[in-house]
Amino acid sequence: MSSFTTQDSATRISVGDAITPEDLSSSGAAADEKTARYALILGDDSLILAQRLGHWISRAPELEEDIALGNIALDLLGHARFFLTYAGTAWGKTEDDLAYFRDEEEFRSARLVEQENGDFAKTIARQLIFSFYSHELYSRLVDSADETLAAVAEKALKEVAYHQDHAAQWLLRLAGGTEESQRRMQAGLESVWAYVQELFYDAEPTAELAEAGIAVLPSSLRESVMERLTGIIEQAGLRVPEIKGAFGADRSGRFSEQRGFILAEMQVLARQHPGASW
Amino acid sequence: MSSFTTQDSATRISVGDAITPEDLSSSGAAADEKTARYALILGDDSLILAQRLGHWISRAPELEEDIALGNIALDLLGHARFFLTYAGTAWGKTEDDLAYFRDEEEFRSARLVEQENGDFAKTIARQLIFSFYSHELYSRLVDSADETLAAVAEKALKEVAYHQDHAAQWLLRLAGGTEESQRRMQAGLESVWAYVQELFYDAEPTAELAEAGIAVLPSSLRESVMERLTGIIEQAGLRVPEIKGAFGADRSGRFSEQRGFILAEMQVLARQHPGASW
Repeated sequence: MSSFTTQDSATRISVGDAITPEDLSSSGAAADEKTARYALILGDDSLILAQRLGHWISRAPELEEDIALGNIALDLLGHARFFLTYAGTAWGKTEDDLAYFRDEEEFRSARLVEQENGDFAKTIARQLIFSFYSHELYSRLVDSADETLAAVAEKALKEVAYHQDHAAQWLLRLAGGTEESQRRMQAGLESVWAYVQELFYDAEPTAELAEAGIAVLPSSLRESVMERLTGIIEQAGLRVPEIKGAFGADRSGRFSEQRGFILAEMQVLARQHPGASW
Repeated sequence: MSSFTTQDSATRISVGDAITPEDLSSSGAAADEKTARYALILGDDSLILAQRLGHWISRAPELEEDIALGNIALDLLGHARFFLTYAGTAWGKTEDDLAYFRDEEEFRSARLVEQENGDFAKTIARQLIFSFYSHELYSRLVDSADETLAAVAEKALKEVAYHQDHAAQWLLRLAGGTEESQRRMQAGLESVWAYVQELFYDAEPTAELAEAGIAVLPSSLRESVMERLTGIIEQAGLRVPEIKGAFGADRSGRFSEQRGFILAEMQVLARQHPGASW
């Protein structure tokens, strides 16, 4: 009979990363207030999207796809952990404090990632946009003057390259499948397109940090992201939606009505039992 | 701008395994009827438990734990894919046919894995029992006269060793935490204990296959699994529940009322759109 001993962390299964949020936490790297607010924007996008994608585990149209979406969700959760851990250094908070004990209006996620999963095609449309956007973002953030952000971006970039490939391949497959799959893929794009422009809005503190070489200016991503999105959508034989950006897409505090439901699910356990060990 | 091409499978993110369900499917290995029915038992347990655990993604009490439970869910889905793919060779069916198009009474999952997640301690109790059981099972199935089952067991064994360690460490952590965490961990064990004995029932075709050296006789696992479970529960300072096995625990067709709800969630998309590509 084997014997077990308790450890500092009861969770020893690691995602096999070179750097971990624990490393970051113990490295002594500390974000200033503005950088922390920027890290929250990045972390919240990944956290909320991971929560949405987690719902697909064992509900996708193929078991292989369950695993693919589950892996993407876990990658995104990993990115969120890095960004939230780093943000927390500015305020003496942990990643868990920030994930589970902020209120609705304190989250900074884009409305794109808060959109409901819908059918599989809508999920793929959301993935396509977010992965193309974040791939471009991280490929520039690797040159950040902030070493921590640069290191996290470098790690995330490799994973997001897969997410991008995954979404693009499904787009092509559904668009090139049956009439019904093509119709649904087009409808999926239409249903989330109003939330694309928000990703490129130069809110504070991002704009100021971009001048200092720390953040990537969102508006500077627009041209290349839109060109690549347009290219793949046209390659798939679909139409690029002509839909204006939704009102108030400025990350200044407006958020979708879905956010509350997402957080309710996410936070209920931690809030019922603060301290996480009951 | 990069260009993408369609492929046979749109899902290229692999779990990094040495062998894959696709390999198995293309290897020409074919199960006979009885071995296929045994593989279904093994596959269904993993599939249903994966579905249950997937719900924890972004809802666990810690982000680190979200990732751990998510990884465990994906491991189990991986095991299910192998077993269902192999079972399907007997009937000309795919893993997806078996996962999404069997009815409630055709599943062979144990009632243990069908139990609701409950609070985190109940999930850990269920994980503890199932991982200790399957570790012992797979450590013997590696010697199966059926080469495919032996190869899958060898792959699964390494992962289940982590699951076991994960559950045991949480058991110790919660039992050794606050009065409340200890109370909940004890209650978690009590709430699933009635479903332990079913795991050791020698149903057909398992008993017959065990004589041929293909399957592991469930009752032959009881002593070592119960000794190890008793050991870790006592090491944690908790009581081994004195609860009789639930009635009808024979895997002969009886199942929990939860099974229907689980399958409804799991199968709705594939059934709405048979053919998976719409």
